[in-house]
Amino acid sequence: MVQWIHCALVNRDCVITRNEIKLVRSLRQKKYRELHRCFIAEGSKLVLDLMNGPFPVRQIFASPRWKEETSPPLPVPVTEISPAEMEKITALNSPSQVLAILEMVFPSPDRATMESDLTLVLDSIGDPGNLGTIIRIADWFGIPQVVCSPGTVDIYNPKVIQATMGSVARVRVIYRELSPFLGSIGDRVPVYALTLGGTDIFYTELSDCGVLILGSEAHGISEELLQFVTRRLIIPFFPANRTAHAESLNAAVAAGIACAEFRRRGS
Amino acid sequence: MVQWIHCALVNRDCVITRNEIKLVRSLRQKKYRELHRCFIAEGSKLVLDLMNGPFPVRQIFASPRWKEETSPPLPVPVTEISPAEMEKITALNSPSQVLAILEMVFPSPDRATMESDLTLVLDSIGDPGNLGTIIRIADWFGIPQVVCSPGTVDIYNPKVIQATMGSVARVRVIYRELSPFLGSIGDRVPVYALTLGGTDIFYTELSDCGVLILGSEAHGISEELLQFVTRRLIIPFFPANRTAHAESLNAAVAAGIACAEFRRRGS
Repeated sequence: MVQWIHCALVNRDCVITRNEIKLVRSLRQKKYRELHRCFIAEGSKLVLDLMNGPFPVRQIFASPRWKEETSPPLPVPVTEISPAEMEKITALNSPSQVLAILEMVFPSPDRATMESDLTLVLDSIGDPGNLGTIIRIADWFGIPQVVCSPGTVDIYNPKVIQATMGSVARVRVIYRELSPFLGSIGDRVPVYALTLGGTDIFYTELSDCGVLILGSEAHGISEELLQFVTRRLIIPFFPANRTAHAESLNAAVAAGIACAEFRRRGS
Repeated sequence: MVQWIHCALVNRDCVITRNEIKLVRSLRQKKYRELHRCFIAEGSKLVLDLMNGPFPVRQIFASPRWKEETSPPLPVPVTEISPAEMEKITALNSPSQVLAILEMVFPSPDRATMESDLTLVLDSIGDPGNLGTIIRIADWFGIPQVVCSPGTVDIYNPKVIQATMGSVARVRVIYRELSPFLGSIGDRVPVYALTLGGTDIFYTELSDCGVLILGSEAHGISEELLQFVTRRLIIPFFPANRTAHAESLNAAVAAGIACAEFRRRGS
């Protein structure tokens, strides 16, 4: 208690205001993220990873201990808050030591990357955990950009940000209407798609650059996108003559297997 | 209303009792599943898949429409319930048309399978979604058995059952203390493990039978299990000289990539 009174007297910035609580809580909703053009991230590793990303840092709320123990210089002063205050603003079930507000960025697809490296395209990935996991996969396999349909869950949704475990700082995530985007990329870039029908990915020639479209488990890839696809791929189940088997793989698992296969061939 | 009164008069079985509601709700907790030796599954596809699995069916609660539209003969009479009653027993956010109570089974590891096919071993996979997804992966790749450490989340947890999307009917899931289990399998069966250090899975000779141990993202594989491992494997990140990248892949994604690679080599 004494510590907090002291803190309030010495530095007014170190106490969270009612408006700040309201702001942080509002950022769980997309409309307020769009209004304020910012998002939240929680947990020490995630927040520190994001300090090295493209997102300007607006504010950091943390426990005095976190502030003391964190060695790298931070871009903004830390607002010290108590566990009870963190409890009020966290979107997690078990609050962490630190919560940051960062500004959203809206990158564009990089054409040079598309011609020289792999680009993932996500068609209506609705599950926050799946999107976060796919961004982690892209990061692991050094895939620099991911283009999402407007129907894909918002990358700045706190659940997605947490599920990326910091990878969102190292992968460019772009939202575009996919038909015009795919229509604009030209003939030089091969367009692969993971679909229910197609050739066995393990026995198909794969380029080390191009676009790979992934759809949701439930709906696959939109009919209108198929016209842009130069090669449809499947991940075969095993053994090939089995009748009863899982109907599909989880979308992030399928993404992982496909990305691993592209990189295995290219390496 | 008239329909329900009629139903109650004609067939007492078609109304759910207070004790049944209590029973179904209790099965969300492991201690009650162990007491009653049964578990719940919800949703038409999942329930119908489970009818073809090893689990004796104890009871089915469903909407009159589901009962009418479901063509395959069911092993027990269906208790028809209203949406309001389903609301009371469901463990899902959006209740489905059908909920079944099934009996748990406790299979043993099959030695012949271990010597002729792939067996997954899971060390402390704590996340229900990850375990369900890994069972789906095993099903997709025709891996007949999965041996779980006691620290792995309960396969009969409703969240795991739902996440398997029916694959639990086609994969034998076994719980064992892993050290004695791995100590008993003999020298003829190679033991692979996905670890942080090891040889590149894509450039390591892989047998088409044996055991593959997978740990959790946070803790990897227990120290005590490493003595049983004949070959440690890694999934390499890309490109190999990168310094900043995701710390790990999601456990289910790593499982998917490893299983795909074993099957690709074997096919």
